[in-house]
Amino acid sequence: MREARVSLGERTYPILIDSGLLEKAGPLIRKQGLPSRAAVICDRTVSGLFSKMLMESLRSARIDASLFTVPDGENSKSLDQTEKLYTGLIKSGQKRDGFVISLGGGVVGDLAGFVAATYLRGVDFVQIPTTLLAQVDSSVGGKVGVNHPLGKNLIGSFHQPRLVIIDPLLLDTLPMRERWAGAAEVLKYALIQDRSFFGILEKELEDVIALADADRVSDILEICCRIKADVVQRDEREGGLRRILNFGHTVGHALESATKFKYFRHGEAVAYGMAWAVQFSRDRGFMDQPQFNRADALLRRFPLPPIPESVTAKSLITGIGMDKKQTAAGLNLVLLKGIGKTVMVRMDDFGDSIEKLLNRQIIDL
Amino acid sequence: MREARVSLGERTYPILIDSGLLEKAGPLIRKQGLPSRAAVICDRTVSGLFSKMLMESLRSARIDASLFTVPDGENSKSLDQTEKLYTGLIKSGQKRDGFVISLGGGVVGDLAGFVAATYLRGVDFVQIPTTLLAQVDSSVGGKVGVNHPLGKNLIGSFHQPRLVIIDPLLLDTLPMRERWAGAAEVLKYALIQDRSFFGILEKELEDVIALADADRVSDILEICCRIKADVVQRDEREGGLRRILNFGHTVGHALESATKFKYFRHGEAVAYGMAWAVQFSRDRGFMDQPQFNRADALLRRFPLPPIPESVTAKSLITGIGMDKKQTAAGLNLVLLKGIGKTVMVRMDDFGDSIEKLLNRQIIDL
Repeated sequence: MREARVSLGERTYPILIDSGLLEKAGPLIRKQGLPSRAAVICDRTVSGLFSKMLMESLRSARIDASLFTVPDGENSKSLDQTEKLYTGLIKSGQKRDGFVISLGGGVVGDLAGFVAATYLRGVDFVQIPTTLLAQVDSSVGGKVGVNHPLGKNLIGSFHQPRLVIIDPLLLDTLPMRERWAGAAEVLKYALIQDRSFFGILEKELEDVIALADADRVSDILEICCRIKADVVQRDEREGGLRRILNFGHTVGHALESATKFKYFRHGEAVAYGMAWAVQFSRDRGFMDQPQFNRADALLRRFPLPPIPESVTAKSLITGIGMDKKQTAAGLNLVLLKGIGKTVMVRMDDFGDSIEKLLNRQIIDL
Repeated sequence: MREARVSLGERTYPILIDSGLLEKAGPLIRKQGLPSRAAVICDRTVSGLFSKMLMESLRSARIDASLFTVPDGENSKSLDQTEKLYTGLIKSGQKRDGFVISLGGGVVGDLAGFVAATYLRGVDFVQIPTTLLAQVDSSVGGKVGVNHPLGKNLIGSFHQPRLVIIDPLLLDTLPMRERWAGAAEVLKYALIQDRSFFGILEKELEDVIALADADRVSDILEICCRIKADVVQRDEREGGLRRILNFGHTVGHALESATKFKYFRHGEAVAYGMAWAVQFSRDRGFMDQPQFNRADALLRRFPLPPIPESVTAKSLITGIGMDKKQTAAGLNLVLLKGIGKTVMVRMDDFGDSIEKLLNRQIIDL
């Protein structure tokens, strides 16, 4: 079993990675010293696929668990749904010595994590991510929260899990589109932090997507989780360094926002955002042409849906203005000095480059 | 200016105590290194009394502040009101580098603190408590949250303020009943932690209530804040020691719950809860008769409203069962070994003593 570790003093936790871990979740949770009362939160699709196996594993480890199912999709990441889950937890008699298990992708992880962070002033929390995106990104690092009608992720907190259990076999049922969307975050780690990992992805990207070899996929997941863990433990609350994880996200969020969060998968928008950031990094002289070519070429292997013509540069710039990472004085951007090397810059003018992304996309991508 | 300090590593913060501090709030906040954009949250009554002075002080320190007013009373401590405040903060353009100021009693402090804890995954927070209860208790220690229709304080988190500003002059407009209710928490500190402070209260309780001498009141506030700070910094998240602050609260909460949170002030219910706990401590042999007599005598000086006849022992025991401090295996209780000395016990049977409190109250109190 592979293990990465997020070292945060008394909030340190392990990330366990291996094929078949879902079946062993109960004993693994017990071994971590978690109590005997749990609330499992998942969406309907995931419930149909995996909740039975999880509930049986919990039962085998004498963990008394209640299952709470929420509707599929981003709409569940709401204060309304949060309140319904509070009600469910209260009615099922969940106390401070119970804990919450998230079984699902990013939406359910963020929602269940926020419930765990705010129920009875915080209860323990276990992440069992079921999508590639959640396995490499959202399940690690403690960012939890829900959406506000006026913007995504505006409500939330930092609440680290006690344990993350990653089973690549769960990805077998994941649609191809979701795998590619998750792979965008995989590529992000290579671009911001690890040039040799980028080399691996140049060779194996499509094999990873095809889940050709579960062991190899576990290796890739481990590399991603180690990079994320390393960044998080150096800057848990995004005071500085952690912002590098937002590489590609500024324009990515704006694209999602301009299409009302309905057209793109998050990872797809981030892939476009990275394409923009890579191009902008070269145009502003941070990154040389050969490295740009390699990064750009790998990004072009992603089968992205085209940017709708209704998305204008103006709408994207408005979207960027709503980005919560913006402070009162200008916008902090993460760019690349090269593959595996970031640079933080403060910008207030990039209108041209946005036009360029839109044109470039229609012509080239 | 008196100053206490809550030492929690990088989350350490000062509690400033002195007559006339509200007028100086702007410069004091600036000195603490807080940013130049604030959201002030208060209720309508407090707004009418103090918001003008605060807003002017903020303006004088070049802090750009928006004022958000919520309806008076416990009903504002809700997820609904929280959501309205999120909306207001978003619409006013409040970003991560803005901060929240709570100007008010416990309800507003808990609500505003919860908003600060969960808006954009947490923004800075300043407490300016305006009631005795808030000045000695709820503004210090980082417990924030709102109520759920099924129970009080079931939703919340720990979010320490960056600064607490306590001005005893604000108590001048506080109704007598609120002063006595706050004084119950003052007495609590003496009972659980400080025998010589208990001696002071034996002499001066009514003078404190009358605000006979603002300097002397500041001394008392400082003693309380130091005790609370000391407990909080040794056990921020109520893993153990901090539970002593719940002295009197188990039965107190049950009394509030049995009367639907409409009849008693929180402090009044806590005073009854302490009367019960003191009696139970003696009956179970933890506390000797002379010390019981002193504690009991001081509690009898509180002009408490009688417990309504509709409150039965059964309803109180049910209420205790809903207490969130209850873990799966029995109830943790804080009792006294003597004045200034607590003992933690796990109990599952105290039906008799509840009857006794009810009878005793009707006859003696």
